[in-house]
Amino acid sequence: MYLHTQLLINEIAADEPDPAAANALQEGLGGQFGEMRTMMQYLFQSMNFRGDPASKPYKDLLQGIGTEEISHVELIGTTISQLLDGSPRYQGKKSDPVDQPGAGGATPLNIALDTSNIHHYLVGAQGALPVDAAGNPWSGSYVYNSGNLVLDLLYNLMLESTGRLQKCRIYEMTENKTARSTIAYLIVRDQAHENAYAKALESLGVN
Amino acid sequence: MYLHTQLLINEIAADEPDPAAANALQEGLGGQFGEMRTMMQYLFQSMNFRGDPASKPYKDLLQGIGTEEISHVELIGTTISQLLDGSPRYQGKKSDPVDQPGAGGATPLNIALDTSNIHHYLVGAQGALPVDAAGNPWSGSYVYNSGNLVLDLLYNLMLESTGRLQKCRIYEMTENKTARSTIAYLIVRDQAHENAYAKALESLGVN
Amino acid sequence: MYLHTQLLINEIAADEPDPAAANALQEGLGGQFGEMRTMMQYLFQSMNFRGDPASKPYKDLLQGIGTEEISHVELIGTTISQLLDGSPRYQGKKSDPVDQPGAGGATPLNIALDTSNIHHYLVGAQGALPVDAAGNPWSGSYVYNSGNLVLDLLYNLMLESTGRLQKCRIYEMTENKTARSTIAYLIVRDQAHENAYAKALESLGVN
Amino acid sequence: MYLHTQLLINEIAADEPDPAAANALQEGLGGQFGEMRTMMQYLFQSMNFRGDPASKPYKDLLQGIGTEEISHVELIGTTISQLLDGSPRYQGKKSDPVDQPGAGGATPLNIALDTSNIHHYLVGAQGALPVDAAGNPWSGSYVYNSGNLVLDLLYNLMLESTGRLQKCRIYEMTENKTARSTIAYLIVRDQAHENAYAKALESLGVN
Amino acid sequence: MYLHTQLLINEIAADEPDPAAANALQEGLGGQFGEMRTMMQYLFQSMNFRGDPASKPYKDLLQGIGTEEISHVELIGTTISQLLDGSPRYQGKKSDPVDQPGAGGATPLNIALDTSNIHHYLVGAQGALPVDAAGNPWSGSYVYNSGNLVLDLLYNLMLESTGRLQKCRIYEMTENKTARSTIAYLIVRDQAHENAYAKALESLGVN
Amino acid sequence: MYLHTQLLINEIAADEPDPAAANALQEGLGGQFGEMRTMMQYLFQSMNFRGDPASKPYKDLLQGIGTEEISHVELIGTTISQLLDGSPRYQGKKSDPVDQPGAGGATPLNIALDTSNIHHYLVGAQGALPVDAAGNPWSGSYVYNSGNLVLDLLYNLMLESTGRLQKCRIYEMTENKTARSTIAYLIVRDQAHENAYAKALESLGVN
Repeated sequence: MYLHTQLLINEIAADEPDPAAANALQEGLGGQFGEMRTMMQYLFQSMNFRGDPASKPYKDLLQGIGTEEISHVELIGTTISQLLDGSPRYQGKKSDPVDQPGAGGATPLNIALDTSNIHHYLVGAQGALPVDAAGNPWSGSYVYNSGNLVLDLLYNLMLESTGRLQKCRIYEMTENKTARSTIAYLIVRDQAHENAYAKALESLGVN
Repeated sequence: MYLHTQLLINEIAADEPDPAAANALQEGLGGQFGEMRTMMQYLFQSMNFRGDPASKPYKDLLQGIGTEEISHVELIGTTISQLLDGSPRYQGKKSDPVDQPGAGGATPLNIALDTSNIHHYLVGAQGALPVDAAGNPWSGSYVYNSGNLVLDLLYNLMLESTGRLQKCRIYEMTENKTARSTIAYLIVRDQAHENAYAKALESLGVN
Repeated sequence: MYLHTQLLINEIAADEPDPAAANALQEGLGGQFGEMRTMMQYLFQSMNFRGDPASKPYKDLLQGIGTEEISHVELIGTTISQLLDGSPRYQGKKSDPVDQPGAGGATPLNIALDTSNIHHYLVGAQGALPVDAAGNPWSGSYVYNSGNLVLDLLYNLMLESTGRLQKCRIYEMTENKTARSTIAYLIVRDQAHENAYAKALESLGVN
Repeated sequence: MYLHTQLLINEIAADEPDPAAANALQEGLGGQFGEMRTMMQYLFQSMNFRGDPASKPYKDLLQGIGTEEISHVELIGTTISQLLDGSPRYQGKKSDPVDQPGAGGATPLNIALDTSNIHHYLVGAQGALPVDAAGNPWSGSYVYNSGNLVLDLLYNLMLESTGRLQKCRIYEMTENKTARSTIAYLIVRDQAHENAYAKALESLGVN
Repeated sequence: MYLHTQLLINEIAADEPDPAAANALQEGLGGQFGEMRTMMQYLFQSMNFRGDPASKPYKDLLQGIGTEEISHVELIGTTISQLLDGSPRYQGKKSDPVDQPGAGGATPLNIALDTSNIHHYLVGAQGALPVDAAGNPWSGSYVYNSGNLVLDLLYNLMLESTGRLQKCRIYEMTENKTARSTIAYLIVRDQAHENAYAKALESLGVN
Repeated sequence: MYLHTQLLINEIAADEPDPAAANALQEGLGGQFGEMRTMMQYLFQSMNFRGDPASKPYKDLLQGIGTEEISHVELIGTTISQLLDGSPRYQGKKSDPVDQPGAGGATPLNIALDTSNIHHYLVGAQGALPVDAAGNPWSGSYVYNSGNLVLDLLYNLMLESTGRLQKCRIYEMTENKTARSTIAYLIVRDQAHENAYAKALESLGVN
């Protein structure tokens, strides 16, 4: 059972809006090696976990990191939303359900034609989408759960390393502080998870 | 930020394993109107929510139901896993990472050739998959978040109703108690969410 | 501009319901070489057609066959719907929007677990779906419209031949008269379209 | 059975070519809430419709609007085609099936490298494609047909509203008269369909 | 540059036709961890390889194993084709391009309705398809090539181990000698590739 | 069985890096009518080929061209890789598996935000990807193998012609010599394959 508290797992630094950086961060959210993937992969590995009581600590590890990844999805999604500026304001009890995009209509929507993913302005209302930086929707086929504990842990290790590699690349692509504060935090956490999976593998006799 | 406690949100009744029922339940997990969808849709609607302080209760509503849906994913995933019997046991610190499927090898794997989704036995190890009952992987393109509050709530209402309709059909398809205990619980919760969204729409002046 | 008249383009013979035949016919509706494909391909080729007045007859040909294909979609979809028996009846002004599947509840839904595509009973209500016989949703990537008239016509010829080949195979798979009456009609029409495209190519100097 | 008459359902205003506007309009054609979706959704709901004679007016409604949507597909597709300028001319009975793009070769094709979807110039010949504004092919998984009349009508209402919301956004994105004449017309028709579905729901006792 | 010699890399044992085993083998051909994947992954890693002359042996390793994988695709594809019995014979210079399935028409095609993937008989002519055992088409999104040599080799190791795990499961699912002769051979080769990648990682200082 | 020799099938001319040209060439590699498609289509047609000894020359033809297509995949993939400049260098036995993109860090990665496919820099390391020019992953659903020899050859002819048409368009889009040397070579080979398939069809009595 899951609970939620209205705190982000890390603070997001203030900076200018930046649609290009927002799009690069989409890879860290909805990409093949992003936070939706890690969250779902560890959730499925936990739900399907079986074994003798001696293997319980491995299930706890997967469940613990998996829960943290939901908070990462929340963090990076909120960051993308903040980077996409001039979003439509909530218009209250108006009779007609059509929004007034761009700070109540002040920001012209035609900037959308030059952005990396026009869906940020056309399908969503300047918010995060469950897609990667090239616009591909997240797919359930990404989730790896072979049922073999050693292979699952080895894949998780590789997944965290690749996620970190991609985040280092995103970090180099932008100097926006909003983007960088979240990316830098996630790089540190990916490293911590790599270490945790490496130790778990070691305890199973795998180097 | 999300927390996890090692309790399922509802108890799962004991009964015989039932791969056909397990496959039908996949629609409730990874289908277009299943729990992964509701969970992700409300999560994205929360993350992207903006507006004046007066609209805060609507964000809280989305976040609250969204958090409950994560527990529903956990519940239905665990139920599917239980319905797929004879799963491989964890084999400990063995040098070779190949499992011994079917209760330590006792249940022959050739039953897989006659089941609804051979992937339950071939790609996974008798566990839930992030796919629907016809084997299609869950897709990020399912998530609806238009940024218009009235439309988002209306869609959520319709989503819960459709989910409930499909679960009523699944309930009629099987008499397995493990499957029915989870399905019956989720039908009740879907109804509760429909009511909550209906009231929220009413408070915005929509009948 | 399109108009509709409430007549099917060909009569559907009466016979027993037959879910397996219904699923085979899905290939002729939503498959890569089915009627949705031909309809959309010729519609796009018409809309994008340009050229000097001398080329107008080719546009008319594409538009004419394309319009006939919409009637074929209607014919084969209605046939599939008829082959899937015991469908839920419309329940009128009831307060609760949940149907009572299987002839008002008389046909138990558990037959769905043994059919070729459980979605016929779980996602739809015993009706045709926009998918092929293996359950893959129809995709816009099927449509071929290169903008080169000779290649477009050559592809169309090949498309009709392949559609006819697949329909001959479906014809051999079932003896159900409902299925065969529609398939036999469509085989004849595919042959006619092949001839039309062959003549058009000939008039352009291609053998 | 469907018929076609060589008139567009609305006149398209003349203006400069505009590839960026053409790409935005792709959402209204091949997007998840575009005209191909409404056309197919209502077509499937009609084909699969069953019920007592009293429910016949609802089938007629779905079929009527569905037929109008085919004309909308034709209208918006033709508009996109017109917005993509300098298209290859038909080259007649030439022996080699390679076109001469860009007004007989006068417009260099290298502009394609800077446009929103290079496929408009590389896969098609400056014509409409069955994809959305982010390049995703249209998918049969979009079609909603639950078999429950109230839910189907409610979804249709929501679908028209979302389509209208997106078209309002596209309208704000461009000042091109060719694009706006078609978009403005479709907004009005979406509104009319919303009203029709709302009245149908009212007659079934749903507010 | 690639060359072909008309010898299979391993002999295929003779046995009865077996459509169910053929479908299970599809996972080893077109599945996420099958031979098309390994072939393409190593091919892309080779083509994109850069580095100082000291890293040349790693490129050679990837290219060598990649080339062997093409022969594995050929082997497992031919095996599936052999397992699907009663295939249509080539009908020579007949005027009508419609085949006569099932040993010249002797084997009735209606067996197709009960097989795991009707496409084996309806879209193909009793031959291998580029899909997995659940019917999903092979996807380019499977290919992993991060550009970081250590990660690429680690992923390759994990890929071979997972491929081997799945093949061990397929081996348990069937006793057909045609299927088993190919699967047993591929299990041995996967093990050899695991060892080669493990040694390469060791030489880079990774345990 | 396949063999590899470390020679490209054609020399690649030297010129400046050009990410836009690299992206256009992706269509020729991973597009619906690109080299991965021809390679896989002919490979499957060969593996599934059956018939009397008299039809052996047709199998040899398919296998021969199919093998050449693997070399084309290698050629165009290597060309794309060369066009994407400033790639990360191999960093040897470093403990941390994070690369230093852009010529050891000299080329800032922020250029990626303005390129046609950010995945070239974010998911890959300035290398070719198994996707088309709009970023869609290659799909197994592209492969055509009906089992009817005449139709298969006719489709192959049409496939080569369409591939050539697209390559002529790419040739017009760029003046980069690296890109053009490969494209020009492939256009010539496509023409040769068209002729081969045309002759094969002629020998079967098809004009």
